[in-house]
Amino acid sequence: MSGTRFPPGSGRPLTGEAVLTRAFRLLRAFEAADGALSLTALARRSGLPKSSTLRIATQLVAVGALERRDSGDFVIGLGLLEVASLAPRGHGLRAAALPYMQDLQQVTRQHVLLAVREDTDAILVERLSALDATPVKYRVGGRLPLDATGVGLALLAHAPESVRAAVMDGPAATVQDAAAGRRVRQLVAAARAEGVVALTIANPVAGGPAEITTVAAPILDARGHALGAISLVSPSTGEPRTGLRLALRTASLAIARAAGQRPRPN
Amino acid sequence: MSGTRFPPGSGRPLTGEAVLTRAFRLLRAFEAADGALSLTALARRSGLPKSSTLRIATQLVAVGALERRDSGDFVIGLGLLEVASLAPRGHGLRAAALPYMQDLQQVTRQHVLLAVREDTDAILVERLSALDATPVKYRVGGRLPLDATGVGLALLAHAPESVRAAVMDGPAATVQDAAAGRRVRQLVAAARAEGVVALTIANPVAGGPAEITTVAAPILDARGHALGAISLVSPSTGEPRTGLRLALRTASLAIARAAGQRPRPN
Repeated sequence: MSGTRFPPGSGRPLTGEAVLTRAFRLLRAFEAADGALSLTALARRSGLPKSSTLRIATQLVAVGALERRDSGDFVIGLGLLEVASLAPRGHGLRAAALPYMQDLQQVTRQHVLLAVREDTDAILVERLSALDATPVKYRVGGRLPLDATGVGLALLAHAPESVRAAVMDGPAATVQDAAAGRRVRQLVAAARAEGVVALTIANPVAGGPAEITTVAAPILDARGHALGAISLVSPSTGEPRTGLRLALRTASLAIARAAGQRPRPN
Repeated sequence: MSGTRFPPGSGRPLTGEAVLTRAFRLLRAFEAADGALSLTALARRSGLPKSSTLRIATQLVAVGALERRDSGDFVIGLGLLEVASLAPRGHGLRAAALPYMQDLQQVTRQHVLLAVREDTDAILVERLSALDATPVKYRVGGRLPLDATGVGLALLAHAPESVRAAVMDGPAATVQDAAAGRRVRQLVAAARAEGVVALTIANPVAGGPAEITTVAAPILDARGHALGAISLVSPSTGEPRTGLRLALRTASLAIARAAGQRPRPN
């Protein structure tokens, strides 16, 4: 939270910038919450004094970014959804992808994910799930690791060199174990060569199958950069069928075209 | 934009509150835009001085609410989607509704909408559309009138008396024409009595069919208040088939149950 400047002897910022930083700290405090937060909980989670929390939260209610319930608890407001839906990398790509994702979901009756890269994470933009699909815990708007998910690896394979280095090589590398590092390198190389990547991972959700398999393909622009990636997540059945790989690749090409890109053969 | 206070002789607000108001004015300036805005366009649309626009926009980039492209243009950022996805009335209701909406969409191959009420408007939370569906221009995150759309009328029929009065009677009534007012009253009464409402309206999109038909049902909580409403939009074929009305009513009851409500028979 850099950029916060306080005048000497005052607990209140002199310039407006700090208010925005603190307002978004308040909004992000809801990420680990289960919907509603009391004023006290909001202050504690955001690390702001209760008086500042109330002042900023009240203003966020006024602009529609928060809503206050009869109980006094705060929740994220619909005004934020109205504005967030204008993000080209979110709902713009989603609008192009959704019909093809629905086709995939209808045929497989499992989970179909759409994600985009934000620095060294993937952000889940859409998830379609059949009522009877294997439970997973991916949440729209949530972050996924680039090096341990299908959509993440598809994005990583077509990310700028600096991002790949940060994830795989650099001092900030998230892949710390040598064997795991080799595995990520192999998957990234396969994703680049084949335009699709498949991996089986332990299911993070208790009660479902022990393992889940994901097949993912990048959505590429004309320069070969990833606009996003789609994946299919299903109970593990070993190596995914060739048909699924082809279905993911053709869907990703169709989405790229629908998003106004001339797809590169991959 | 009330609440903006300027100290005498200064163009800069003394308290932080005004900054938040102005920041959301900047964000909402993208609503009528087609994705990206230059600094000049952003300043013009928001009505803020260019210097303030740059200062606030730069800070919004820092918190992820805006992104700046290589061209210098600004777009709404993914950071906003991450936070907005935590809105219970948006993605929370959407998560409960989506499987049932997919079923409806798969069976009909048309548009299925989910909306919630915000004051005297409906806000579209989700729209599923088949690739070959009749073109419509409803946008996720966009506002729809309560008195002229299927989801709007379903929400209006179960809104507090003050909202119904504001739309239908009061000095701020949006229904100004007497005949139109009678028509809205009839539809609201039918929606309350039958738990479903159908109407045929002129298609706002050129090139498609002249008229579209919408069938909508409210999603009610245990007190009979509308959490939201779903609708099916299709090319006009006169009075919608009884089966569609039943399908919408049963889907709305299933969504209420999935959202943790004990549905009221309606």
